[in-house]
Amino acid sequence: MLMMDIGFIGLGRMGEPVAVNLLKAGHRLHVWNRSHAAAQRLAEQGAQIAPAPEDALKCEVVFSMLADDRSIRSVLIDSGILAQAPKGLVHVNMSTISVAFAEELAGYHEQRGLAYVAAPVLGRPDAAAAAKLSILAAGPASAIDRIQPLLDRVGQKTWRLGEIPAHANVVKLGANILLASAVETIAETAAFVSSHGVAASDLLEVVTNSTFPGPVYQGYGRMIVEDRYEPAGFKAGLALKDVRLALAAGDDRAMPMPLASVLRDSLLDALAHQEGDKDLAVLGRVARRRAGR
Amino acid sequence: MLMMDIGFIGLGRMGEPVAVNLLKAGHRLHVWNRSHAAAQRLAEQGAQIAPAPEDALKCEVVFSMLADDRSIRSVLIDSGILAQAPKGLVHVNMSTISVAFAEELAGYHEQRGLAYVAAPVLGRPDAAAAAKLSILAAGPASAIDRIQPLLDRVGQKTWRLGEIPAHANVVKLGANILLASAVETIAETAAFVSSHGVAASDLLEVVTNSTFPGPVYQGYGRMIVEDRYEPAGFKAGLALKDVRLALAAGDDRAMPMPLASVLRDSLLDALAHQEGDKDLAVLGRVARRRAGR
Amino acid sequence: MLMMDIGFIGLGRMGEPVAVNLLKAGHRLHVWNRSHAAAQRLAEQGAQIAPAPEDALKCEVVFSMLADDRSIRSVLIDSGILAQAPKGLVHVNMSTISVAFAEELAGYHEQRGLAYVAAPVLGRPDAAAAAKLSILAAGPASAIDRIQPLLDRVGQKTWRLGEIPAHANVVKLGANILLASAVETIAETAAFVSSHGVAASDLLEVVTNSTFPGPVYQGYGRMIVEDRYEPAGFKAGLALKDVRLALAAGDDRAMPMPLASVLRDSLLDALAHQEGDKDLAVLGRVARRRAGR
Amino acid sequence: MLMMDIGFIGLGRMGEPVAVNLLKAGHRLHVWNRSHAAAQRLAEQGAQIAPAPEDALKCEVVFSMLADDRSIRSVLIDSGILAQAPKGLVHVNMSTISVAFAEELAGYHEQRGLAYVAAPVLGRPDAAAAAKLSILAAGPASAIDRIQPLLDRVGQKTWRLGEIPAHANVVKLGANILLASAVETIAETAAFVSSHGVAASDLLEVVTNSTFPGPVYQGYGRMIVEDRYEPAGFKAGLALKDVRLALAAGDDRAMPMPLASVLRDSLLDALAHQEGDKDLAVLGRVARRRAGR
Repeated sequence: MLMMDIGFIGLGRMGEPVAVNLLKAGHRLHVWNRSHAAAQRLAEQGAQIAPAPEDALKCEVVFSMLADDRSIRSVLIDSGILAQAPKGLVHVNMSTISVAFAEELAGYHEQRGLAYVAAPVLGRPDAAAAAKLSILAAGPASAIDRIQPLLDRVGQKTWRLGEIPAHANVVKLGANILLASAVETIAETAAFVSSHGVAASDLLEVVTNSTFPGPVYQGYGRMIVEDRYEPAGFKAGLALKDVRLALAAGDDRAMPMPLASVLRDSLLDALAHQEGDKDLAVLGRVARRRAGR
Repeated sequence: MLMMDIGFIGLGRMGEPVAVNLLKAGHRLHVWNRSHAAAQRLAEQGAQIAPAPEDALKCEVVFSMLADDRSIRSVLIDSGILAQAPKGLVHVNMSTISVAFAEELAGYHEQRGLAYVAAPVLGRPDAAAAAKLSILAAGPASAIDRIQPLLDRVGQKTWRLGEIPAHANVVKLGANILLASAVETIAETAAFVSSHGVAASDLLEVVTNSTFPGPVYQGYGRMIVEDRYEPAGFKAGLALKDVRLALAAGDDRAMPMPLASVLRDSLLDALAHQEGDKDLAVLGRVARRRAGR
Repeated sequence: MLMMDIGFIGLGRMGEPVAVNLLKAGHRLHVWNRSHAAAQRLAEQGAQIAPAPEDALKCEVVFSMLADDRSIRSVLIDSGILAQAPKGLVHVNMSTISVAFAEELAGYHEQRGLAYVAAPVLGRPDAAAAAKLSILAAGPASAIDRIQPLLDRVGQKTWRLGEIPAHANVVKLGANILLASAVETIAETAAFVSSHGVAASDLLEVVTNSTFPGPVYQGYGRMIVEDRYEPAGFKAGLALKDVRLALAAGDDRAMPMPLASVLRDSLLDALAHQEGDKDLAVLGRVARRRAGR
Repeated sequence: MLMMDIGFIGLGRMGEPVAVNLLKAGHRLHVWNRSHAAAQRLAEQGAQIAPAPEDALKCEVVFSMLADDRSIRSVLIDSGILAQAPKGLVHVNMSTISVAFAEELAGYHEQRGLAYVAAPVLGRPDAAAAAKLSILAAGPASAIDRIQPLLDRVGQKTWRLGEIPAHANVVKLGANILLASAVETIAETAAFVSSHGVAASDLLEVVTNSTFPGPVYQGYGRMIVEDRYEPAGFKAGLALKDVRLALAAGDDRAMPMPLASVLRDSLLDALAHQEGDKDLAVLGRVARRRAGR
């Protein structure tokens, strides 16, 4: 694998470990972040600090991992810098953004001769650090082929979801609704069995050893059983963001989503009680609170 | 293991294969069923047909696996026969019944010197036939100890949930809410991604190979992806029965259960469209129908 | 109007004022109540105390106004006394009971040559005292004709809903779902506008003077605006009872009822916080609590 | 009252009749509309056609009644014309917009020395034509005082909701949630009683003559009873727009809104079945469809 010049915009909780893994692979990284501290940490490991976002675009490939539509729009579009990026640039957008904006971005790049790959990820910061992310990639096959060796350094598996970038965002939202809904269900059933004097751990032990193996029921189940929601792997506030995006994308297609609506209300209940920075598992506390327990 | 005389009441889709497994283990079975055909099939494999339910009670142990509270109450209580069963009888009730009735039954047995073990199961008829059920057992430890060898012949694992029989029923309902909720979530997210032009199988492939391994997401996911709901392993109508029981048990403890309420409404939607005998996975069709797809 | 001998069973918060109004009309009342105090109060106003429920049945007409299915079943059916009531007796059942039980009762009376009129009422105890109840009556026309003069003394209007008694119960439940849903909506919108710094009274003033005149939006609105839920005209716990009955009756017809499910969960939330004896308007507090306000 | 020069931007189903009423009052109207036909109709009644939106701003007062945030932003803000409007202009915005945008607009005007009055209305196009709208007005008292004579010509009553313009939008959304929720409840209970063989008209007759007088229960009730959803006074698609705005405004304040979520899903169900242009009462059909009726 050839060493590449890679721009990297957005060194948040997820972006930083991803960037570190690209750096470890031997690439030349040009990093930019709104606040300086994270960029400085990367520099100490060998990255170049890009003085401005446009400097990160003067590469073969640029990764972006920003918080939301608004950040991407502000840094890359409204600033005009993406419009002036060199033809042929491959933009790998790992940010979780709305489906509507993903569609807009795909068109924006295409008109300007830029390759756009949507590559949102499944996994928490610890998975990012361990290069164990699941990457959902969609966009022009040739572009994905070119960056696949990079994706292989930051994730354990890349799921290729076709040529339409927004499809990767759709799958990401679907996966996170599945996740949040599983957690809400654990919360509700744990409170339910407790109300009848049964230890929630008894229920969890049964199902995680039979119908529901795997990390979600086990990990979130344990936090709910222990009523312990810190440290937060996936914050309730961030999960709510994804639920909102799914509801909006469903709304665009006239799709009733009653479960997602319940998730939204329960997560808002958490936020209303200052629990937005707790782990998503805090839904366990929301369920108990409503039941007066 | 000593050969025992075992009564068996209720040879429905689940009861019959359980009884067959006890028979295969070499026990003397005295079977009773409301309709004769199933009893006849057992007789052909060596069971005795009990002329009346009370004849099945004249054993060391009697299993019951009837449809609901009403059946149990009618056959065993209102008939007066359980009140006259020999002291020391162990009644193993595998029926899915309400928590309130489970509590009533426990008291009823105790007053009459009978041992009552609640032993509802997780698993479909094919799991029952293969002796792969998960058994949730609660009741007097000595009684469970005595019948454990029997349970070992009909299930792959017995979860012991303490001395209070109703606790087993509570866990059973909790487990089935987890199941139905997972299926509803798959249904909703599958319809969601489809509405954006993404194959539901793409979503399912991602999550069953990462966050959600195990039989539920795989098996029900496949049925929903294929829009195929027969043969029915777990009928929508039976799942609704369990959701109702959970809601009632939650209601008894002033427990709001918004997800269970969504499940109830979606399952009623299925019933209203003559889909009650389809597999629970038919929730996939309900979600698509609401979205006009 | 001729003076009649009237039995009256059940002198609770609603039954007592209804009985008083019949007494004031000059009829001979034979009252029975589980606890003696209320019967004693009636006796002081001229009623006869029936030593046992069956004594109240030895009349031309008997009114019953008991708490629920269970009470009616226990006092009148399981006791065997209704089966021995004189042919020709008109039983006017004002109790709020399940639709299924209403159907069972209709058949029970018919088989025994008794006339059964379902006559549940709309209105709080103060309306009962003022003889301003709305009476929903269904049953044999000739029987209703006969008791109409009595109904005219306890209500301001009788709605005749046909020959099938259960239909009156169905309409009663429908009306109470409309009521509880209006209150829940006021609760939710009041919390909503408050969260944006708008006085809930501003919203209520607008709508009660335009789109939503009438006692419900005004009366419940005021309680919610004032966050004052006592004295309780219609207790949250009793409203929940009606919501449960409606859900059960809907379930019998495979009717999804998502709003009723929300009502159920919010009322359970109230109960879980020891607010079941507060007025139904306490849903206003539930909405605010979930929003952390 | 002095005759004024009034700009009017947006001559849709609601805007046109409002503009006509201002014209009838003798004012000089300068109208602009994206499509020409409506402006032409106004011109035939004596209005001036403004060649461009900015021409409508060169007045003492300008009314705007556009479809949504996007239209207002595009026509007035992004175009830059509002920034150049004459100091002292009073902008009366009757459009139904998001609360967040209402707050943004208030700040935008204030910075530029323009007076901003939010004046969303309650009422259908026929009420607008009859000058019977309910107007919800908020903004600087002096500005509202100045335009009050104008408001009096287009509405039957102006509710003054304080100095913060967004508060009028909040109340508007609250009122429309109350409306949509009442209609959904009628839909659900009508389907419920029908499923038990009771005519929905029986239920409606009872409640509109007792607990729920007024136009909503009567008018929408009749449409649902008759299963007739055209002509559409208030389209389902427009009601959904308001529900979305309320949910978004609630979300901003961490406000769970379970009823509004149910409304959203039911309205999406309508849209998914090509019923978005039917009257809001089409929720009656949605409820029946889910129940297979």
